Amino acid sequence: MRAVAILGIGQTKVDEHWDRSLRDLAVEAILQAMRDAGRLDVDGLFLGNMMAGILSAQNNLGPLVADWAGLKKVKDAVRVEAACASGAAALRSALMAIASGELDSALAVGVEKMTDRPMPEVTAALATAADADYEVDMGLSFVGLNALIMRRYMHEYGWKHEDFAPFAVNAHANAVENPYARLQHPITAEEFERSPMVATPINLLDASPVGDGAAAVYLVPVDSLRGNGYVRVLASAAATDTMAVHHRQDALFLTAAYRSAREAYRQAGLEPQDIDLFELHDAFTIMSALSLEACGFAERGQGVRLALDGEITPQGRIPICTRGGLKARGHPVGATGLYQVAEVVQQLRGEAGRTQVANARVGMTQNIGGSGATVITHIFGKA
Amino acid sequence: MRAVAILGIGQTKVDEHWDRSLRDLAVEAILQAMRDAGRLDVDGLFLGNMMAGILSAQNNLGPLVADWAGLKKVKDAVRVEAACASGAAALRSALMAIASGELDSALAVGVEKMTDRPMPEVTAALATAADADYEVDMGLSFVGLNALIMRRYMHEYGWKHEDFAPFAVNAHANAVENPYARLQHPITAEEFERSPMVATPINLLDASPVGDGAAAVYLVPVDSLRGNGYVRVLASAAATDTMAVHHRQDALFLTAAYRSAREAYRQAGLEPQDIDLFELHDAFTIMSALSLEACGFAERGQGVRLALDGEITPQGRIPICTRGGLKARGHPVGATGLYQVAEVVQQLRGEAGRTQVANARVGMTQNIGGSGATVITHIFGKA
Repeated sequence: MRAVAILGIGQTKVDEHWDRSLRDLAVEAILQAMRDAGRLDVDGLFLGNMMAGILSAQNNLGPLVADWAGLKKVKDAVRVEAACASGAAALRSALMAIASGELDSALAVGVEKMTDRPMPEVTAALATAADADYEVDMGLSFVGLNALIMRRYMHEYGWKHEDFAPFAVNAHANAVENPYARLQHPITAEEFERSPMVATPINLLDASPVGDGAAAVYLVPVDSLRGNGYVRVLASAAATDTMAVHHRQDALFLTAAYRSAREAYRQAGLEPQDIDLFELHDAFTIMSALSLEACGFAERGQGVRLALDGEITPQGRIPICTRGGLKARGHPVGATGLYQVAEVVQQLRGEAGRTQVANARVGMTQNIGGSGATVITHIFGKA
Repeated sequence: MRAVAILGIGQTKVDEHWDRSLRDLAVEAILQAMRDAGRLDVDGLFLGNMMAGILSAQNNLGPLVADWAGLKKVKDAVRVEAACASGAAALRSALMAIASGELDSALAVGVEKMTDRPMPEVTAALATAADADYEVDMGLSFVGLNALIMRRYMHEYGWKHEDFAPFAVNAHANAVENPYARLQHPITAEEFERSPMVATPINLLDASPVGDGAAAVYLVPVDSLRGNGYVRVLASAAATDTMAVHHRQDALFLTAAYRSAREAYRQAGLEPQDIDLFELHDAFTIMSALSLEACGFAERGQGVRLALDGEITPQGRIPICTRGGLKARGHPVGATGLYQVAEVVQQLRGEAGRTQVANARVGMTQNIGGSGATVITHIFGKA
């Protein structure tokens, strides 16, 4: 595959942006990424978004956003949707468009507007990431599904709820100085344990907050660049699993995450110990544990141990959620996968301030759609 | 770009399939395409769909459908959305995935389920293809937008409503023996003129009917094939325009269709007179006229003349809608672009029965999203 570089990144703050529209947010991230890249136009726009059709009565976001951003040269402008993995799916589409030789530059943009509508509508919209006929019709919400997985995990491996605290504490600690994070305040393990129940055993501080936000990356082929100093895409790998969790042979192992990570390691010629930081998909604390296990950073059932041992902090063996993760930066669904990428780029450029991972040269992202139905893993390196 | 061949096609009948779900329809088309291709699995699934989130409370259709079809080997399974051009956008994503070398086989599948919900909900869902803030909020529906364009066109060029009859008459005549068409009956010019008004000047027989349906094509790289007898993709080109019609300098010229077709001709090394048949996007009769003009088959304002002269029939200079088009085969939105492709493949294989275009060697498709905001043109040839 023709090698691809990330030349620019852009992010809006994740927040309740009641005064700004979906297109305004997308364009803010796009213009920031283009300024960062030093480019004035682009050949293609690949937009990750899950819920605008439902929550904003707006589809066809590709030309809508391209037009609003004033991109006159754009050929392809399409939306890519893979539930919560829409951002990484958009990135992968952009990569393949450049790799195929069809385009010589592309923007991957993720955007989601979730706070303009009442919460029951948002909860229903989020549930469209699960199987409508075989999960949601039975009364399961998306949190409910994750709660069943977490409860079984605790039962199988003997962990208590409080053992999951380090995931949330680490995420909040890292978000404190990230100006784009929704929740820029630290929390304690005691606060984690005391927070209100959402769906047993998931409480408020196990769960990532929704929000409005957009993130973008600007991509060009490596062969169009001279010198170095850019971030290079070392691997891009997608995998899928059954949509309904109960159709899986094993609900406690993210098979698609395993397959996607294994393929990404193969493409990059790397192993888990070569990864300096890992922006994983901590929609719920249980997902952090399962993702670490599926990607080879912990044995099965021992992802929680890694966190309890302090190995997931910026100084640990495998730093995760270094800018706040979904938990504290926030989870504007279709944008999340591109926030992860922008954050890895910040780390590889040495721009992560107090949560900078020392000598970061290789970073990995993993974006998960549905409860593990779609998993897309990317690895990035300094060039 | 690595050359790509179409090895198999599949279609369901366009109809009110109240007894069958979205995933059932998609899988029927997929299995038919795989049987036709003689393949048992596939590397990637690119699914065109616009409204399932709104009308079926189901997103993340990629893994849902891959799972239901029993595709065990699939890596990428994502939804691609570009309003009514979602089908062609899915095809283009699949082409780029193969061309990039990432995948060695791919399915492009379009599916839409539109008749399970009351018509006002469907009309609102269709309107999400227009600009929610600057068109729909002003009271415009999608038909309303096209009606404004058609009225202006009639005013500028002096055509009467009855002059548009040949577009609908040709489409219905061609659908009679297409078993997948929704409306398999002929109509007369008198019936066209007498049919009930929808939004002046568009009446019922100017407009394409919605429906449930799915269509699929199976793609492989040409370099993986021996011999010939397959259909080859000669060109794939996307272009965009402003989302809102009133933002365009000229509402009567489909600039994106012009740009997309020009680029497709360039890629294929062909000119309009080399095209043996053209499956265009006749969502409304006015769109047929505008598309023919933008693609170089008629002068501006003279698309209607071409139809009146009988040049759009299977025996004419540029046969269009040879299997019924959107008008009579039906317009299950996200699937339409792939019905067009399957129909061109039938023509190039000589399988089009009574509406076979004699010696068809090169066929073109054009799929339009929004009122010309996204336009994707493909050219196919016999190899």
